[in-house]
Amino acid sequence: MINTTRFLENLHRLRSFGAHGTGVIRRAYSEPDLASRDWLASQMAAAGLRPHFDAMGNLFGLADQPSLLLGSHSDSQPTGGWLDGALGVIAALEIAQTAQENGGPAISVVSFQDEEGRFGVTTGSSVWSGQVSQEKADGLTDSDGVTLAEARQALGSRAQERVDPSQFTGFIELHIEQGPTLDASGQQIGVVSDIVGIRDRVVTLSGQQNHAGTTPMALRRDAFQGLTAFNALLNARLRNVVTPQSVWTIGHVSVSPNASSIVPGQVRFSMQWRDGDPERLMRMEKVIDETLHEVASAHGLEIELGPLLGLEPVEMDNALRVRLETGAEAVAPGQWRRMPSGALHDATNVARLMPVAMLFVPSIDGISHAFEEDTDEADLVAGLRVLAHAAGVGI
Amino acid sequence: MINTTRFLENLHRLRSFGAHGTGVIRRAYSEPDLASRDWLASQMAAAGLRPHFDAMGNLFGLADQPSLLLGSHSDSQPTGGWLDGALGVIAALEIAQTAQENGGPAISVVSFQDEEGRFGVTTGSSVWSGQVSQEKADGLTDSDGVTLAEARQALGSRAQERVDPSQFTGFIELHIEQGPTLDASGQQIGVVSDIVGIRDRVVTLSGQQNHAGTTPMALRRDAFQGLTAFNALLNARLRNVVTPQSVWTIGHVSVSPNASSIVPGQVRFSMQWRDGDPERLMRMEKVIDETLHEVASAHGLEIELGPLLGLEPVEMDNALRVRLETGAEAVAPGQWRRMPSGALHDATNVARLMPVAMLFVPSIDGISHAFEEDTDEADLVAGLRVLAHAAGVGI
Repeated sequence: MINTTRFLENLHRLRSFGAHGTGVIRRAYSEPDLASRDWLASQMAAAGLRPHFDAMGNLFGLADQPSLLLGSHSDSQPTGGWLDGALGVIAALEIAQTAQENGGPAISVVSFQDEEGRFGVTTGSSVWSGQVSQEKADGLTDSDGVTLAEARQALGSRAQERVDPSQFTGFIELHIEQGPTLDASGQQIGVVSDIVGIRDRVVTLSGQQNHAGTTPMALRRDAFQGLTAFNALLNARLRNVVTPQSVWTIGHVSVSPNASSIVPGQVRFSMQWRDGDPERLMRMEKVIDETLHEVASAHGLEIELGPLLGLEPVEMDNALRVRLETGAEAVAPGQWRRMPSGALHDATNVARLMPVAMLFVPSIDGISHAFEEDTDEADLVAGLRVLAHAAGVGI
Repeated sequence: MINTTRFLENLHRLRSFGAHGTGVIRRAYSEPDLASRDWLASQMAAAGLRPHFDAMGNLFGLADQPSLLLGSHSDSQPTGGWLDGALGVIAALEIAQTAQENGGPAISVVSFQDEEGRFGVTTGSSVWSGQVSQEKADGLTDSDGVTLAEARQALGSRAQERVDPSQFTGFIELHIEQGPTLDASGQQIGVVSDIVGIRDRVVTLSGQQNHAGTTPMALRRDAFQGLTAFNALLNARLRNVVTPQSVWTIGHVSVSPNASSIVPGQVRFSMQWRDGDPERLMRMEKVIDETLHEVASAHGLEIELGPLLGLEPVEMDNALRVRLETGAEAVAPGQWRRMPSGALHDATNVARLMPVAMLFVPSIDGISHAFEEDTDEADLVAGLRVLAHAAGVGI
């Protein structure tokens, strides 16, 4: 039987590393991060697992036979919530501990490093899965200019060789939803169908900087007006190709010279879109590109496109997903749904190596990446039970 | 006879103070600014005028009897053009010099300080005219936090008492157009009919910051989307109330938190509009306000309005304007037009004290507030001639 008291105690113990108000500041390779991993390693050992850090600082608790891998990440955002990643790691630990007490099945545990992207993004699992080479990752810098190579020296003698993924039969990650869907619907569990693909590019529109008093409207080539026209037309045009789950966002805008008396000569902005269907991602890209060129032409603006960055959608493994759905119906009958993950997770990378699946519990008010992030205890426990059920461990 | 060679030499001599490529860096109270004013003072003395700095550093060259005041400003933008303000000062100097050689009429010369608004805007003439008190102006800070009170200490013993405006019969300012109208039409002279009024306010729209991957479009309150919707609707609605000379500009935009993966929770932007008709300014304000509230309501956003700043339109004095038009037709027959000034000038403030008028020469490609600012020599000389004609000095 899983021990929910022990589970909640460990969750709050992990919270104490880098605690800040109701949240945590526990960035990858920081002192609280390393201290929390050392504590996790001791808990893994107590659960009969062999603790093992790789060169990135991903911490595994390894069973001594082929096993199911459970876990998430324990590094946090600069101003992080207490459950983001931590939930999946402690739930995995609890299930591994229970499995040991029951004499099986074989469960391994992982806490990936730098999922939150102090360097790159989902960096620890990215290197482990081969998505990016250690060499390339080492050149990444954080916002203060520190390189990953420098930062991971803090691991010292902990760092060992790479863990062979072939010992795992699959990976299941429990995570908070970080969105409003479950909370708004009053449901307790989300079984993830797929992790959406993402496309990201920086666009620069260039017109003509001018005096805002002396330049008649008819003679302006206002780059910001170009952006707003593009935005309005895009919203209308995308409605023909998207579903209610598709998202697109202009999150970063930089106007130049950005003065109230000067007609904007240039604007640089981020265009991001996400969808679970690779074909729809491409159709959205086409609409975005055509609309951009149409508006730029009409407004006399030049376009400069940054590289198109992105990740493909990742489908969850059928067999693992069905195990989660069975568990969800057992634990929270009628109180669960199938849903996409709009956010990237370590599971995105691990899918390159083995079958993966994910499940969600609600985020209160959809809040994450903030100290206020929280989830009702009953929902945390429900998530643990569903995960345990899917892992073949008594609930 | 005005001496065009001497005029152009002096124009290029002034250009040498703070010269930077084809432009100038000669900010108010900087070393090049003070050096140039000392040189101007010596030139004024050579023209038989009494040089006089007031407490702001406005430099006057005073005739010894009631006189017509001519001039402009000689401080520059952070990256300034060589003619902006300088043209009017050197033209005034040339006309005063010629008047002395001719035995009359009585001409005084002025180079106002900080027209470019290192502190406030048109600051020197603003204080002289009483538009703002010395005490209030002294509290203004530049973008580095230096106060005007601190900066004008650089004047040292130059600073004397206020100049009595009652000694002047009027003020005429020659200036580059800083816009594309004359250049586009191939005309040489613009006689200003009025200086447009201006309204300026900062608007903040607040929605809900959110994860750009996990927040469905239907549940977003994206503040930047609110701005673009407002912008589009505003452009459509204003067309019912404006003329081809009306202008409106969103020049400054600040998105928060301004990250590509975060739905913007807040946007702060500047809304500026200009027109020569005070009633139209008010109608535009009404449209802007109604549209803002309508869009904010539809998008679930909150509005915060900064104070409404502005200046009223200023009509040019009829008698002085007619003198300029007569001069324009004499010097550049059929090659001049009557037009509004879309930019503020020192004349805006001086109009509180005496009759004022302005005239323009073309700006090549409409460029100003940039090192590339320029005007054909023939047009510079034409402007000088028209000003001389209006001042009653032989051309």
